[in-house]
Amino acid sequence: MRILLTNDDGVHAPGLMALHRAFKDRHQVTVVAPDTEQSAVGHAITLTDPIRVRRLEGEDGLDGWAVSGTPADCVKLALHELLPQPPELVLSGINLGANLGVNLLYSGTVSAASEAALQGITGLAFSLGTLHRPDFSFAARFAVHLVERLPELGLPPGTPLNVNIPALAPERIKGVRLVRQSHASLRERFIRRSDPRGHVYYWQAGETMDSEDDLSLDYPAHLAGYVTVTPLRLDLTDEELLRSPTLAALDLP
Amino acid sequence: MRILLTNDDGVHAPGLMALHRAFKDRHQVTVVAPDTEQSAVGHAITLTDPIRVRRLEGEDGLDGWAVSGTPADCVKLALHELLPQPPELVLSGINLGANLGVNLLYSGTVSAASEAALQGITGLAFSLGTLHRPDFSFAARFAVHLVERLPELGLPPGTPLNVNIPALAPERIKGVRLVRQSHASLRERFIRRSDPRGHVYYWQAGETMDSEDDLSLDYPAHLAGYVTVTPLRLDLTDEELLRSPTLAALDLP
Repeated sequence: MRILLTNDDGVHAPGLMALHRAFKDRHQVTVVAPDTEQSAVGHAITLTDPIRVRRLEGEDGLDGWAVSGTPADCVKLALHELLPQPPELVLSGINLGANLGVNLLYSGTVSAASEAALQGITGLAFSLGTLHRPDFSFAARFAVHLVERLPELGLPPGTPLNVNIPALAPERIKGVRLVRQSHASLRERFIRRSDPRGHVYYWQAGETMDSEDDLSLDYPAHLAGYVTVTPLRLDLTDEELLRSPTLAALDLP
Repeated sequence: MRILLTNDDGVHAPGLMALHRAFKDRHQVTVVAPDTEQSAVGHAITLTDPIRVRRLEGEDGLDGWAVSGTPADCVKLALHELLPQPPELVLSGINLGANLGVNLLYSGTVSAASEAALQGITGLAFSLGTLHRPDFSFAARFAVHLVERLPELGLPPGTPLNVNIPALAPERIKGVRLVRQSHASLRERFIRRSDPRGHVYYWQAGETMDSEDDLSLDYPAHLAGYVTVTPLRLDLTDEELLRSPTLAALDLP
C-alpha cells in the first residue's frame, strides 16, 4: 500500500521512526511530518504564514518531507502538492502520551487522522500511554496487525480510528476494546510566574483525568490495560438537540 | 449575567467590539481574548510556551485581558486564573467570515465556545458571512436576542451553539434555521513560491465550499439567507461504527 506517515511530535520523533521501521519493508511509506513538535495544536491549519518544506534526503532512512506546519497542514500539503499519487492510508503517531477523552479535541495526532478522513482516506492515530522511557515496539506491532486486518473491518471511507496502546509489557495487555470517547473531567491548573522585568506569565500544567469504572469508555479501559479503539465522526452536530422544538422555535429579533 | 467575551481575531477586532457594545450595558462583560489574530487554530492549546497576559486598562472601553495564546487558552485561563468568579456565559466572536461545514474543525471561534462547554458553561460562537466591509450590527443584535431567549431554549450545560449570520441587510434575512453541519467538500489549493534564496514555500489558499441544495445543512441554508444555528456535541465517537461486529472482533497480534 501507499502509506503517508505523519505525527505531531516532529519528523525525527522515536514514535514515528517505530512506525516507519514496522511498515517500510512491506509498504511504500512516505513521511510528511512537522519539522518541530506540534503537540496540542488540535486541528489547527496554517493560513497566515507561509509553509516551508524540506526534502528528507535519507535522514534516518526516511523518504519524504519535513514541514513547517501542523499535522493537518502536513496531510493537506502531502495530498495536494507533495505526493505524486494519493496515499491509500494515513498513519499518525506513535504519539508519546495517550490521547483519550476530551484530549482528543486538542490532539495533533488525532487531527492528522481526521484530516485524512476528511479527504476520504482512512486515517489511523496511534498513541502510547506514557511520557517516559517509551518502548514503541508493541504499539508498532499492533499497528501492523490493525492494518493487515483493515480489509475485514469494513471501515467506511472518511472514518478515522483513534488507537491507544497502554505502556505495558505485551503479556500484561488484556485485549482490545472498542470504546467510546470518555468525558472524564480534567484537573487543569496554571502555574503563575513573573519574568525578571516583573511581567506575569503562565504555564499550562499537566492535566490529569479523573477515573471512571466504565470499561466501555476509552480512559477507564486504557487504565485497565486494554488497547482501545474509537471510531470517530467529524460531524459535530448534536442530533438530539437538532430535534429540540424550543431550539427550533428561535426566531429573528 | 457575568459574560466572558472572546474570539479568534484578536482583542481589538471589530467583531468583538460589536458584541461588547451590544452587551456591556445590560451585563457584566469581561474580555479575555488573544492579543493577535488566531484564525484557524482549531482547538489548539499552548503547552510548550509560556502564556503572557496583559491587563486591558480601559482600551476601547474594554475590561479584561489580552492573552498570548489561542481562544481555548483564553477560556481556560479566564476560568482558572483570571476571573474572580466563573462566567455564566461565554460569547465568542463575532468572527469575520462564516464557520460552516468542515471548517468548524479549524475554527478558533467555535473552539472557544466548545472549550466553555467542556467546562460546563454555555458557549455561543457567532460568525458573520463576509470577509469584506463587515457590518456587525445585525449580528450583534441577533446575539442579544439569542441570549435573551436562552432560558427558554433548554440548552443542557456543555452544549455549544455555532451561529452564522449572513452578511445581508436585515430585511433580506429570511429567518433562523436549526441545521446540521454540512459535509460540503472543500476546494483546497496551495500556492507554491520560491524565496530569494531559492527555497520553496507554500501558501494555503482560500477554500471554497461546493454548494448543496439541502436547507437542513448549515452551508446551503447560510447561502440561502438564513441565520443558521447548530448545536454541537464534543463526543467524537461514531456511535454507529461502535456497534460494528467486525470492528469489535479486532484482537491482539
